[in-house]
Order: sequence, then C-alpha cells, then structure tokens
Amino acid sequence: MNIQAPRGTVDILPETAKKWQYMESVIKNVCDRFHFSEIRTPLFEHTELFQRGVGDSTDIVQKEMYTFEDRGGRSLTLRPEGTASVVRAFVENKLFGSPIQPVKLYYFGQMFRYERPQKGRMRQLNQFGVEAMGSADPAVDAEVIDLAMTCYKELGLKSLKLVINSLGDNESRNNYREALVQHFTPHKDELCNDCQSRLTQNPLRILDCKKDSEHPAMKTAPSMVDYLNEESSSYFEQVKTYLDLMNIPYTVDKSLVRGLDYYNHTAFEIMSEAEGFGSITTLAGGGRYNGLVEDLGGPNTPGIGFGMGIERLLMALEAENVTLPVDDQLDCFLVAFGDNAESESVRLVHTLRENGIQVDRDYQGRKMKGQFKAADRVNARVVLVLGDQEIENQEINVKDMKTGNQTKVAISDIVSYMQTVTKQEGGIS
Amino acid sequence: MNIQAPRGTVDILPETAKKWQYMESVIKNVCDRFHFSEIRTPLFEHTELFQRGVGDSTDIVQKEMYTFEDRGGRSLTLRPEGTASVVRAFVENKLFGSPIQPVKLYYFGQMFRYERPQKGRMRQLNQFGVEAMGSADPAVDAEVIDLAMTCYKELGLKSLKLVINSLGDNESRNNYREALVQHFTPHKDELCNDCQSRLTQNPLRILDCKKDSEHPAMKTAPSMVDYLNEESSSYFEQVKTYLDLMNIPYTVDKSLVRGLDYYNHTAFEIMSEAEGFGSITTLAGGGRYNGLVEDLGGPNTPGIGFGMGIERLLMALEAENVTLPVDDQLDCFLVAFGDNAESESVRLVHTLRENGIQVDRDYQGRKMKGQFKAADRVNARVVLVLGDQEIENQEINVKDMKTGNQTKVAISDIVSYMQTVTKQEGGIS
Repeated sequence: MNIQAPRGTVDILPETAKKWQYMESVIKNVCDRFHFSEIRTPLFEHTELFQRGVGDSTDIVQKEMYTFEDRGGRSLTLRPEGTASVVRAFVENKLFGSPIQPVKLYYFGQMFRYERPQKGRMRQLNQFGVEAMGSADPAVDAEVIDLAMTCYKELGLKSLKLVINSLGDNESRNNYREALVQHFTPHKDELCNDCQSRLTQNPLRILDCKKDSEHPAMKTAPSMVDYLNEESSSYFEQVKTYLDLMNIPYTVDKSLVRGLDYYNHTAFEIMSEAEGFGSITTLAGGGRYNGLVEDLGGPNTPGIGFGMGIERLLMALEAENVTLPVDDQLDCFLVAFGDNAESESVRLVHTLRENGIQVDRDYQGRKMKGQFKAADRVNARVVLVLGDQEIENQEINVKDMKTGNQTKVAISDIVSYMQTVTKQEGGIS
Repeated sequence: MNIQAPRGTVDILPETAKKWQYMESVIKNVCDRFHFSEIRTPLFEHTELFQRGVGDSTDIVQKEMYTFEDRGGRSLTLRPEGTASVVRAFVENKLFGSPIQPVKLYYFGQMFRYERPQKGRMRQLNQFGVEAMGSADPAVDAEVIDLAMTCYKELGLKSLKLVINSLGDNESRNNYREALVQHFTPHKDELCNDCQSRLTQNPLRILDCKKDSEHPAMKTAPSMVDYLNEESSSYFEQVKTYLDLMNIPYTVDKSLVRGLDYYNHTAFEIMSEAEGFGSITTLAGGGRYNGLVEDLGGPNTPGIGFGMGIERLLMALEAENVTLPVDDQLDCFLVAFGDNAESESVRLVHTLRENGIQVDRDYQGRKMKGQFKAADRVNARVVLVLGDQEIENQEINVKDMKTGNQTKVAISDIVSYMQTVTKQEGGIS
C-alpha cells in the first residue's frame, strides 16, 4: 500500500504554507486598500458554464477540463479558471442590482487543468484574481492593472514586464477578424490542424499558436491596433495615459490576444524577467470582457479582471532571491520533569495559551536534555523549566534562549510575565 | 441561458466572506498558540486512499463520494474529509522522520459529499481540522480537545456540549465487537438491511443507525466501557483527568462510536445546545487513530485529530446571536468633479493606496451629490473633495463623515494627513 498525491498535484507543507499565508495576507491587504471584497464560489460548476463562459473553442474547454457526472447525472467540471464562476455568481446573486457600483471582487482558490505537468504548470494550481463589474471607465482598467502590479511590488518582485494591448470593441474586432481571415486563407494548407479550424472559429488565436509561430505569414499578419475604430483607439489612449500618471511602465505588444474568447478592449499580461525563471514567464493575465455578463444571462454589464498564479509568484520570488518575512518563532516551550510535573504542565500550558501565549511542550517522554533540544528545534524564544523543586516553591525557572539569561518567576505571575515578554522586541533583561 | 451554482453548493458573498475571514484568523491564531502548523493537500486524491483510509464499509465511501476518471483513466475522488489526505501527505513526505515530534498540523478546506442538501448539510462543505501524529500521550488527546473548545470559545459560543467516549485499543475493541455480534445476532431479521451487513462488517456502527434506533435491542446493547482492558481504561481516565485540570466540562456518552472505521481510544464530539439551532447539532468530531498511518503505508505511528464544520460554526454563532467584529469601514472616498479632476484623481488614489490608505472613488460619472451618497454607502470614514478650485489651490477639502468636521489639506500633505487619521480611533479634530 503506497498511495501518492495524484499526478500534477503537490502537498504544501508547513514551511511553504507559512509563505503562502504571508503572500495571501499581503494581497488581501492590497485588495482592502483598493476596496475589492472577497467572494468564494464552488470548486465545481455545471460544465455548460465554462463551455459558454470560457469558450467552446478554447484549449481549456476542449482539452484540459476535469469533467464528470455526479450521482444525479449532472455534468460538472472542476473550475479551470476563476472569471466564469465569479460572473455566474454576480448574475445569480443579482449583484448587478447592488447600490454599490462597480462591484469589485477578488478570489483566491484552486483551479484545475489537465495538462502535462511541468515546472510552473500543475494540474491543481492556485490563483488570485479580481473582477470589477459595472463600469466602462478606462480608469478601472488602469486600477486593476495597478492592483496586480502593487501586489508584486509589495511582495518584493522587481524584474517585471507589463505588456498591454487593445482588442477593441466588437466592431473593431470583427473588422480585424475579417482581415486575419483574408490574410491567412491563402496559407490555410500550410497551417497546423488547430489553426485551420481557428481560421473559421477564432482567427485571433492563430497569432497565439506555438506550432505555426515561425510561419512567414505570422510576421506579415495585420495588427489589431490598425483596425481599432476611433472610440476603441481613444479608450486605449486613456488607459495608457492613466498608467503613465501612476508611473507604471508598460510595453504595447500588438500580438497579445490572450487565450480566452471573451476579451475586448484592454488585454494585459505581466511577465517575470528574472534570470533563470524558466520558460513560462507569464505571472498574470487579464483583460476587459464587456459582453460576458450578458452571455451568462445577466444584463449588459461591462467588466474587467485578471488571474494571477500563486505557484508562479512563488517561483518568481525564488528566482529574485526574495526572502519573505515569515515568522517561525514560538513564544515559549515548557521543559518539565519529575513526578508532579505532568499535571502542572497540562494546567500551565492550557493557561498560557488561554491568555494569548504560544506554547508547546514535550509529549515524547524525553529527558531534560532532550526537551531543551526540542525547544531549540521549534525556535522557542523562552524556555520555562518546571521540576519538583520549582513546583514545591510554586515558581518557574525562565530562560531566554537568545541571551541565555535566567530568572525565577512565581507560577501565579507567569502569564503576565510572558505577556510582557512577547510584547518586547528584545530579550529578557 | 441561466446557469446556477450546482445543487448543494453556495456562493459566499462579500459580507459573509468577511465573517469567514474573521473566523479563519481567530482559528489560525489559536493554532499558532497551540503550535499547530498549516498543511494544504490537493482537493482530489486517488479513490483508493479514501476506500482504505476512511473505510470501504462507511456511508461516505459507499454512497457519498464524488468519484470520476481523469483523462488518463485514473480513478480520482474529491476529498470527503480531511484526515486521510493529511495522513497520506504525512507518509508520502516522510514527516514521520521530522526531528520535531509529534507533527502537529491543521488544515482549512472544502470537502465534498453527495448527500441530500439541507440546512447545515451541503455537498460542498468547509472544514477546519487538526491532526497530531507521533505521540501516544493522553495529554495530546486533551490538548486537541482543548484546541477545538478554545476556537469556539474565542469566537463567542457559549452553549456547547462536549461528549467523549473511549473505543479502547484493538484488543478491547475486538472483545466488544464480539459482544455486539452475540447481542444483535438473535435480532438480525428485525434490523434494517444496512445493519444486517454492519453485523459482519462493523457491528459498532449499528449503534449509530437512525432507522433502528428505537429497536428494544439497542437499549440493552453492551457498552464499550465494560470491555476496555486495563490499559485502555487507564488511558481514558488520564484523558478525563487532564480535561478536569483544564476546567473543560464533558459528558461521557457510551454510545458515541463515530462513523469512521479508523478510530480507537478517545472519540469525541462537540455539539451546539443553542435553542433553535436545528436538528443536526454536531459542530465537530474527532478521535484517536493509532493504526491509520500504518494502514496507509507509513510506520506504526499514533495519531489523533478532529474535523470542524465551518458552515455549522456560522449557524451556531447565528443561533447564539453572536455578532463577529467585522471591519466594514473604508478609510476614505474621493469625491471629484470638474474638467481636470480625472487625471488628478487617478494620481491621488494611486498614491494614497501606495502609502497604505484604503481609498475608493467614483467610476460611474456620478454628480457630486451621487458621489457623496456612494461614499456613504461604502461607509467611508473620510471624504476627500477635489474640484477645479481645489486643484487650482493644490489642496483638498477633507470631510469627516462621523463628526461632519471639514478642513483643508495641501495635496502634497494628504498622504501623511491620512496616515495620521487612520491611526487615530476617534474623528478628525
């Protein structure tokens, strides 16, 4: 019997989990400042939601979803990304009727994609994302990009590259689509099978193709920017102006089209430029999706959001040698020995914890020396020593593990003593 | 097109999510004090893990699991509970070799059970749980129970009932099992189908049966306590002594056997006694599982843990009318109007957020009055007013929404001004 975690999944063990907790608390704090609120949606949805909300012709829906029937015969799918679920929740819970508009939401959670596992690409992956629905103001586009960049900056990343593009409104996109079809149709037979069907289903995605990326027709393909109508062009200019005002550097990448069907106007990606980061450099990606809420049964509502991979964020932090300020100290460890120590230990540990002190003790029947070693291993700031003599005198021997200083404290005073110690930055004087 | 969340699942919307965040932060703080560290395991596992680790004959495994094949033909199951996954991770990551023993872990996460949805019973549910592996000290049993009770107490629950029982060691349990078989066999034909197969598979679970609970043989059934051998009996006495030392009240319930196969020695449940809480009163349940690590391929290692339902915790808080101290105030809202306000707003909002201030603004093109109304709706503590006049004078009109006091602050000073305000408890003087 040797059962392992399923392929493409990992356990996040305590040392790493502390880093996750830290990353999440920084990101949550950023969201509070930007006035985005958390939403939690189910881990699975009706399969139809993703077929409709992500797009039937996308790789995600066609190849990568964990789809299954429940015992009632419903087709369910583990969510492959966050936007469709949040938009579904926005519609189902009628958040479009909220007096507070736009509705600004964020989420943390696991996503599931059946892909070939490799570094930075897991079958169960974690994403943080935001969705702002209800405003078509280009300042919201800039705010959402600002939020993503702020998260990275406050976690300590420096080598970042923001690329943006505009996919325009429906009119612009339709014109561009036609131009692409005209451009690629003469080369149809030279393209890969996927691109041949993309030519009719979604020609924009040909530009994303890895197989055909070296085909000469790729280089001469028309650019979206040349097909933006005046309104779309002016919208894009405003977004760029706002990014300039916030001193957020960016590059316009005409080939950025994103893999999902629902984007229009602003599309953006944030990449790591850290050396040795690996080949998959995209840390976050997002864009505007003004038609999606309506597609999923809600009223016509503009929206924009992004998704950010947490595993890749952690990889980028490692590539840049950023050490997260993770607290791994314990307030105190109780070393106890002698015949009467057990009862007194149980009572004392309980009382200290009840009063806000972190404390641990020995549960392995270790001798005194072994207990001190255990205290050292858990990085205890203070060791409380309790033997027969101490119990008789109703006092505790307190040792500061940093300075080595020792002092005696009455058992009845130990709570207030420890409360004072844990409030101090330095050692015991 | 009208897609809804799957049956038995719900969206946790921002107002409720704030309560969840608060509950989680309190519980995390308790875990820090008890020196339990977080572990995160995948949402799905190989089906075999639960068949083996929860028990093939349990209702969970037989009737309630979300099991499916992935695209590679593996049988996977969404985790129905937390213990099997954590023990699997303990074995796979060789945590039994850690120099720090026992290994004390906690987890938060979604669990999945295909049951008939009702109040307090969802198909996607959330649990907090702990597992302490590596020590057979009865003081650990008491510590784990203390941890659960502390979480409830610090969240404000008062009407709680702790029930405990001992299932004894293997020898005691085998003797008791035999006694039960002898007792129930003469009534076999009068029992329900499930109990008839329980009689051979796991007779202890007959005592849990809802259908047969009124059968006269239930009342006269032998009690586990009468079959505990001396070691088991003394172990149970010690656990009770430690609970007494910590002033944790409990009731011994001889019929408490828990629904899972792997328990031995201490079993416990915590129930809500709040009026109007509903019929499912169990908030948390757990017990010792000294054979489980070995069953799942690890070395012989004692262990104990519990799982606690978060949805039910929230229901219990509501039944006891406990109001969680959730922060729903925003530091400030920017009201801006006039021709030059847009650029200045983008810059100002960015700068304030960059410096730790929570701020939001209008993105709906509202008039001044509408913007003030919006500031009110988001419960802004301070409103910053920026018009043509203010921009010309390079100052901001600051209004305290609680006191109504107004003052003018230079734009160049607004960050330090707001940093001072947010550190104060009262209003602007």
